[in-house]
Amino acid sequence: MTRPVRPPRGFRDFPPEIMLLRKDLFQRLEKVFQLYGFDPIDTPALEYWEVLAGKYGEEAESRLIWRFKDPWSGREYALRYDLTVPLARFMATHKGLPLPFKRYHIGPVWRHEEPQKGRYREFYQCDADIVGSPYPEADAEIVNLTIDSLKALGFESGFTVRLNDRRLLRGVFEEELGLTNVLPVYRAIDKLDKIGIEGVRGELEKIGLSDNIINKIIDIISLSGEPEEILQWIRGKYGGNENVKNAAAHLEEMIPLIKRPETVKLDLSLVRGLDYYTGPILEVVLDKPRIGSVAGGGRYDDLIGLFLGERVPATGVSIGIERIIDAGLELGIYTLEKKTVTLVQVIVLDKSREVYSYAWQAANLLRDNGIPTRINLARTGHRVQRRKAQRLGIPVLAFAGKKEAESGSLTLYHTGCGKRLVVGLDEAAKSIELLIEECGRNS
Amino acid sequence: MTRPVRPPRGFRDFPPEIMLLRKDLFQRLEKVFQLYGFDPIDTPALEYWEVLAGKYGEEAESRLIWRFKDPWSGREYALRYDLTVPLARFMATHKGLPLPFKRYHIGPVWRHEEPQKGRYREFYQCDADIVGSPYPEADAEIVNLTIDSLKALGFESGFTVRLNDRRLLRGVFEEELGLTNVLPVYRAIDKLDKIGIEGVRGELEKIGLSDNIINKIIDIISLSGEPEEILQWIRGKYGGNENVKNAAAHLEEMIPLIKRPETVKLDLSLVRGLDYYTGPILEVVLDKPRIGSVAGGGRYDDLIGLFLGERVPATGVSIGIERIIDAGLELGIYTLEKKTVTLVQVIVLDKSREVYSYAWQAANLLRDNGIPTRINLARTGHRVQRRKAQRLGIPVLAFAGKKEAESGSLTLYHTGCGKRLVVGLDEAAKSIELLIEECGRNS
Repeated sequence: MTRPVRPPRGFRDFPPEIMLLRKDLFQRLEKVFQLYGFDPIDTPALEYWEVLAGKYGEEAESRLIWRFKDPWSGREYALRYDLTVPLARFMATHKGLPLPFKRYHIGPVWRHEEPQKGRYREFYQCDADIVGSPYPEADAEIVNLTIDSLKALGFESGFTVRLNDRRLLRGVFEEELGLTNVLPVYRAIDKLDKIGIEGVRGELEKIGLSDNIINKIIDIISLSGEPEEILQWIRGKYGGNENVKNAAAHLEEMIPLIKRPETVKLDLSLVRGLDYYTGPILEVVLDKPRIGSVAGGGRYDDLIGLFLGERVPATGVSIGIERIIDAGLELGIYTLEKKTVTLVQVIVLDKSREVYSYAWQAANLLRDNGIPTRINLARTGHRVQRRKAQRLGIPVLAFAGKKEAESGSLTLYHTGCGKRLVVGLDEAAKSIELLIEECGRNS
Repeated sequence: MTRPVRPPRGFRDFPPEIMLLRKDLFQRLEKVFQLYGFDPIDTPALEYWEVLAGKYGEEAESRLIWRFKDPWSGREYALRYDLTVPLARFMATHKGLPLPFKRYHIGPVWRHEEPQKGRYREFYQCDADIVGSPYPEADAEIVNLTIDSLKALGFESGFTVRLNDRRLLRGVFEEELGLTNVLPVYRAIDKLDKIGIEGVRGELEKIGLSDNIINKIIDIISLSGEPEEILQWIRGKYGGNENVKNAAAHLEEMIPLIKRPETVKLDLSLVRGLDYYTGPILEVVLDKPRIGSVAGGGRYDDLIGLFLGERVPATGVSIGIERIIDAGLELGIYTLEKKTVTLVQVIVLDKSREVYSYAWQAANLLRDNGIPTRINLARTGHRVQRRKAQRLGIPVLAFAGKKEAESGSLTLYHTGCGKRLVVGLDEAAKSIELLIEECGRNS
């Protein structure tokens, strides 16, 4: 068997240079999540199928969830599709957690998408959610955390937070169109970014709506701009509607708590694809590149109740780290230059067992002093050792030959600045630290 | 739908107090892996079935691999069973990586085991492997990394590194028993810890071996002790055998490079369950509690070749973090006391919008200064806010009421030492740092 040697279609390997970038970005995100007082949880990759069933809408349910039957037990399982439904299940499994419960969760999810540029069948989500508060301050905290997350990831500006409220659109539709089952309309509108306004018109026609109603929907979802202005307009026109009133009051309390109000736009075309949202929803889009939203979330006050049996309000956001990585690489904010964490390569200059044993001892000493160190494991000559170290970008070479073994020393060489010095073994770690401080971590 | 509210049988949720411990331990391990010059990679949760097929032995293949057919494509997938076979596939996918390639991989694997105490269907493996060196120094580095990993996890002593070499046993069997297909014998011996010597005897009888041969096998696998002594004995008796000679030479070069030789025992009953090992193999067992091995690995020089088409030697170890966590909790080395990373709870003393807005600003300022901070999101009274903060173990309370809002201050209180002070908003972050330095991170 020599084939297949590829990961499954739509799945990816992460070699060190990508993994080091990813780990760095995850850490930056975690730091922001923790600053906001969120704590980590994890849930299984698999859930029973019934846990995911009926939560995401028809398309996900019929086509996009990885779902299979265990041949032994006959039980149906599914790979988790997002981190929100597992959180809802988690809240029911762990009844009695003190509320508000603030958790973050960074981990892979699986979707049976048709793979294409920027769309994978396995990708990470980075979610922060607040369970147990129905109040606008919880939604505002989620928006602020999102803004700070983007900043931590290197996107201080050049993005817009699109905000809407599910109740706003629902209320306007109730008043204007007499629609009560609005989910199919939401799904059509949700495709706006992908298929454009005429595409949405076509989708609405498929639902069976009249031209008159379709025109009104298109008018409404074209409203986008400064939140207070739009809210005032809607209030003036539909303020008697219960849903509109509640949404407007919620947003009016929420918006003043947002850190950078100039980044926020109220956009009535924003609906989000998932069925479970009930209140404010948000998405973040970058000015460039145009790659769709890089964060999205909202309030889902009914989802946890499906598992717990009692209504527990919740709100949260998912940072779209995969798109952010693609965008950051494209914009040159991120690079894949770092190929290793190793700072020192011990170059063994001599094939004798004595010298090797000395070099081995030196490598161990450096590691004991906190310096990531490699030593020749392939019995290659010193030129090959050197070339390999340079190919990886290891900044410091530590030569160990007969001379060094006899005098208990190491010859250090920084491949970036070219500085060379001979130091005793017991001061080697300290000298390397100073050398890196002076000449940097790059070769 | 209100049921099921549990994760699938054999799968686990990790609430914050467990997750914080796990993350801490993973970080300690990563630090050791990086000190030895290993870099991180990741591979998909799913592989094509053919990638895993034929690699692990009959039991795994027929019962223990989570395997399913994609209803759309008809393709067969499997959840990864370990991190070693995916590494082998990875080496073939990413041809031309500079060798030796040293990678670590921390991630979940899935096994269709019957769940029981300490045995899960989803668990993490923490692997470090060296690809591209056939030499004993690579195996020695793996042993040293294992010893340092245990130390970093809090197990400085109280463990034994059991060492053996697949070729040693094979050679002795060739000489003594004329056995050439030794895999079924290995599998029987591998159950020694679980079923005892008489159980192994029964298994060997099932294979169809004679009493005479079974007695000889039992004699051989009873050899365990100081490596040099046992090697000398074996060399004296079976030194003419090619496998024995190669194994002994390899081990004799490897053992002097091991950091703490006093922890190492050569143990001929060690075979390891997996089929792919070809040379030195190792396992670590704790003196107490008796929970089986907490680390295991070895050399597998043929596995990568199955994917790549050319032979590439490799050796590595998997740290059994799940068992180590269980053991560490049982021994009191680890605790689940830490429930949050949050250091400050802003207690809002007044229901007015002005005071809330002031408290909100204070919380944001603390976060901007690097202090993990929570603020009341549930509009509860200050007593409830305080009780919830204490339940989570948040050390510092920062009271914000009318008085504080008017004077631009915060009243700080350390719940551990009882110290209280009033500080201006602009010095609050610094004061909190000093307070925690003085009184600790515990409430």
